[in-house]
Amino acid sequence: MSDVTVHLGPNKYGKAENRLVRITRDSARHEIEDLNITSQLRGEALAGSFLTGDNSRIVATDTQKNTIFALAKKHGVGSPERFLTVLAEHFTSSFDWIEGGLWQAEQYEWERIVVDGADHDHSFVRKGQGTRLATVQVVDGATHVTGGVKDLVVLKSTGSEFRGYPKTEYTTLPETDDRIIATSVTARWRYLPDAVADGVDYGEAYAEVTRVLLEQFAVVHSLALQQTLYEMGKAAITARPELAEIRFAMPNKHHFVYDIGRFGLENNGEVFIADDRPYGLIEGTVVRDGVDDAPDAWRDVPTFI
Amino acid sequence: MSDVTVHLGPNKYGKAENRLVRITRDSARHEIEDLNITSQLRGEALAGSFLTGDNSRIVATDTQKNTIFALAKKHGVGSPERFLTVLAEHFTSSFDWIEGGLWQAEQYEWERIVVDGADHDHSFVRKGQGTRLATVQVVDGATHVTGGVKDLVVLKSTGSEFRGYPKTEYTTLPETDDRIIATSVTARWRYLPDAVADGVDYGEAYAEVTRVLLEQFAVVHSLALQQTLYEMGKAAITARPELAEIRFAMPNKHHFVYDIGRFGLENNGEVFIADDRPYGLIEGTVVRDGVDDAPDAWRDVPTFI
Amino acid sequence: MSDVTVHLGPNKYGKAENRLVRITRDSARHEIEDLNITSQLRGEALAGSFLTGDNSRIVATDTQKNTIFALAKKHGVGSPERFLTVLAEHFTSSFDWIEGGLWQAEQYEWERIVVDGADHDHSFVRKGQGTRLATVQVVDGATHVTGGVKDLVVLKSTGSEFRGYPKTEYTTLPETDDRIIATSVTARWRYLPDAVADGVDYGEAYAEVTRVLLEQFAVVHSLALQQTLYEMGKAAITARPELAEIRFAMPNKHHFVYDIGRFGLENNGEVFIADDRPYGLIEGTVVRDGVDDAPDAWRDVPTFI
Amino acid sequence: MSDVTVHLGPNKYGKAENRLVRITRDSARHEIEDLNITSQLRGEALAGSFLTGDNSRIVATDTQKNTIFALAKKHGVGSPERFLTVLAEHFTSSFDWIEGGLWQAEQYEWERIVVDGADHDHSFVRKGQGTRLATVQVVDGATHVTGGVKDLVVLKSTGSEFRGYPKTEYTTLPETDDRIIATSVTARWRYLPDAVADGVDYGEAYAEVTRVLLEQFAVVHSLALQQTLYEMGKAAITARPELAEIRFAMPNKHHFVYDIGRFGLENNGEVFIADDRPYGLIEGTVVRDGVDDAPDAWRDVPTFI
Repeated sequence: MSDVTVHLGPNKYGKAENRLVRITRDSARHEIEDLNITSQLRGEALAGSFLTGDNSRIVATDTQKNTIFALAKKHGVGSPERFLTVLAEHFTSSFDWIEGGLWQAEQYEWERIVVDGADHDHSFVRKGQGTRLATVQVVDGATHVTGGVKDLVVLKSTGSEFRGYPKTEYTTLPETDDRIIATSVTARWRYLPDAVADGVDYGEAYAEVTRVLLEQFAVVHSLALQQTLYEMGKAAITARPELAEIRFAMPNKHHFVYDIGRFGLENNGEVFIADDRPYGLIEGTVVRDGVDDAPDAWRDVPTFI
Repeated sequence: MSDVTVHLGPNKYGKAENRLVRITRDSARHEIEDLNITSQLRGEALAGSFLTGDNSRIVATDTQKNTIFALAKKHGVGSPERFLTVLAEHFTSSFDWIEGGLWQAEQYEWERIVVDGADHDHSFVRKGQGTRLATVQVVDGATHVTGGVKDLVVLKSTGSEFRGYPKTEYTTLPETDDRIIATSVTARWRYLPDAVADGVDYGEAYAEVTRVLLEQFAVVHSLALQQTLYEMGKAAITARPELAEIRFAMPNKHHFVYDIGRFGLENNGEVFIADDRPYGLIEGTVVRDGVDDAPDAWRDVPTFI
Repeated sequence: MSDVTVHLGPNKYGKAENRLVRITRDSARHEIEDLNITSQLRGEALAGSFLTGDNSRIVATDTQKNTIFALAKKHGVGSPERFLTVLAEHFTSSFDWIEGGLWQAEQYEWERIVVDGADHDHSFVRKGQGTRLATVQVVDGATHVTGGVKDLVVLKSTGSEFRGYPKTEYTTLPETDDRIIATSVTARWRYLPDAVADGVDYGEAYAEVTRVLLEQFAVVHSLALQQTLYEMGKAAITARPELAEIRFAMPNKHHFVYDIGRFGLENNGEVFIADDRPYGLIEGTVVRDGVDDAPDAWRDVPTFI
Repeated sequence: MSDVTVHLGPNKYGKAENRLVRITRDSARHEIEDLNITSQLRGEALAGSFLTGDNSRIVATDTQKNTIFALAKKHGVGSPERFLTVLAEHFTSSFDWIEGGLWQAEQYEWERIVVDGADHDHSFVRKGQGTRLATVQVVDGATHVTGGVKDLVVLKSTGSEFRGYPKTEYTTLPETDDRIIATSVTARWRYLPDAVADGVDYGEAYAEVTRVLLEQFAVVHSLALQQTLYEMGKAAITARPELAEIRFAMPNKHHFVYDIGRFGLENNGEVFIADDRPYGLIEGTVVRDGVDDAPDAWRDVPTFI
């Protein structure tokens, strides 16, 4: 088989999961920003490392790590979207052979501990409700920005039906007009390039999008988790003019009515067993009418989940 | 080696991690209780199953599961401590050969989703900050009750020193008078038997103990994580007369000052890297003076962590 | 903002992580196949569920689950690639509005327990070394098949250098001509459509690809993890004519030489500390020359990892 | 409540999860030892750190970390039991106020990668089947040693019954004379003090105990998982005269026969769904007749699991 020949296809490399904690201590009232950052670079010139082990164009992953912490000092964080943009600009402008890359972040939120009814200046407790997500991608000279959230776990104890589906050879599920619906929301929303150029208040956008997602989950009378997903996305895009599209992965975290009728007990939607696997998995995208597609924005971004 | 003989030592068996979700829907305003329950039984008569496969005294683990869900309907939950007590009483009174056992629970808290500024009636978002713990143990006719919390992640960006330790052959750590101190608190507190007999408001106790733990973590100027631990325990016992003792496992979640001096940048406690492993692990118990030891309360309870 | 309008973008839905264990017991010598299967469907007609909660075309996720287990009885498993193909054909042929979908599997391998030097007929121990992966994707009438492996953890204690990289403002990493190199290989390889049409012995291909990957990791003197990755991919494609391309995600699991020189001890590559985060992350694709791209094959497949 | 007084109860502290990789490279054929080590110290003199933040007797956890790596160079590993003993002796002899402690290890096994039919000199693949465990405990001048294993996942596709259990108000489980039985074995065995004093070949003991556990799981016709556990323990103690006792935690990893009778298909123990939670949890100890109890050996050791 000596005549088999191959070539290098899509690739990127960098340093993953840099756990940056940035304290702002300009006054006695400290601020904390807590992130998990991944930096990865792309460029034709990097092929040498793959093909022959020529590292003369490889900005070492250790160098990428150092850069993250140095730039966090120089420029502060502000928001994950802003800080990833700082990183993207640094790497693409400092090395002419770095054509682009993907920068990703998770951000963990902290609340101030309350002492005698007042927020403490420098003591915090991790919030634990949802993790903020962000990506900045540079491809062919264009910069794409997404925000997002994951692990936002929600549940409605009523206001959810599931009916009208085809009854096939292998269908045994009974229809229901009242069930628990629960999911762990993962959402990523893409900001419109014009909005990014004009400047977005990413923190405000994050707060409002997550607020709207929760609110919509609550108020929609659900006929299917698909419908809930779509209404959540529609509400988010309606609320924030900066959003081009939003995509979701929403597992249907099943809560089964426990059969206690066998023991002469009535179960009017009161006693459930929460199941782990398997689970329904609903994924979908809601897009603002009239915006251009941007597949480059989503290149190598975790697909739906 | 045909003359080797053995016997059965300590043992228990049951059904672990029953994920019970209990909805109270007496009115349009639903309540949710979300638990992960483990039930395990002990008794001399159970030896037959181990020794010869004689199951005539084995209350099947599947039966234990059914029982949990049936009793959740009959009696409600109320608090994990109360519901585990219901289970303990059921099993020890229904089967005369069941001498005791260990019942454990985790409870996940939910908050109501806010819609138009008001708490929604039946839509919830998981709080995510700390998980409530409880155990009920029956040994030799005595019932022991503990409450607890885990995964309560806290951090102080200043107000922590670490100095004065021995400088040995293998010591390289520099002393510091200002560092980040962070930990994920696991705590279990034992209720005094008299308090249990008189009736404890376990929910109120949980709320106050966790509040006091947070507050104390914030206000103590820390000379060592050990000292912080002790002050937290002392404050909890002082605050709640029902508590006999409290034990803690507190990992020292290291946040290292990132060395950006190499790049001509000053780091005045602003840029840190959070490390995963290894980590300091401080474990200790604070005991109210004058109370009796109760080793049976802690039998087979996860040790410190 | 009442004039904001949106539409549904890319989506799919189904049942995830169905844990199928299939025993073949035609003789006293049982065979075991242990899989984790996800089935998800796509089709224009499914939009109604998202847009209006019209479920008349929704093959319920519960139905998909039942189908997996029923077809496992009817057709057996054989290989994950084969069984996912059976599922794909079932769903796309049984429901004319199901245009395609993505079916994914993990497979866990088991070894027979050895008793008195002989393999036991029906007792197994889980192998634990690497998890087999497979996907079948149907898009626009075309079927794409990939195989893969994850969690294949490898390490070389010498035979790895890293030198010649640019020394930038933020570079502090010293060059090395002898380091530990370790990674957890995730690889997915796409089978050529013609090979799929002609019939592939997927099990044999899996065994040989993983064998070649290990062998190549061992024999390549590594100048960069990138180069190791490329040589592994090249060897796999050379070894198996059915392969169109192979893509990898290879974290650089850092093992740092522990500085015991501070204690007057010499460390000639003998004592290392394994670090968790951050880690280098090298991702790349090796493609057989002359084959057509197939982006549909990779739609929604976990990107690199 | 100013009159509440408390005291310090049981405690220990140290550095957890030190990931030591030790390469022996005396020849071209390297050896690898890969461990996760936790060191924790006890002593009355350590109370000052808890009570007043007096660290003058605190051997810093960072110092404990350095010591682990330094001693790994000086003395090699050999076996986890031996290396933990080296650590225990070092800490208790170097600091007269360190009265004892608990040292724990996990060890991950590696196999040589095969190249052209031969084991490679310095390239390894992680075995992944079971993790070796060890503890050394020093209390009141006595040293206790345990070995162990976890995550050893086993399954029998037949040769398991479960019958004869009481049918109570909440019993719905049907009896079965043929089921899948599967578990993930966690076992810890205590070595006799005399054997420790005389010298144990811990590696050989580990290999034989795990071999015997697997063999016994295979050959016992199981009437209950309890019975299987007991027979496994009895066989281990019979096989190795160094063992005083062995304790097990064995979750009953349920595999339910999937009901495909609803689709007109017969399921003769061929198609199962593996379930995650809840699960049976069987824990028990098998003790050699005539040996003394040693509760100190198990102090703070993870209970059963």
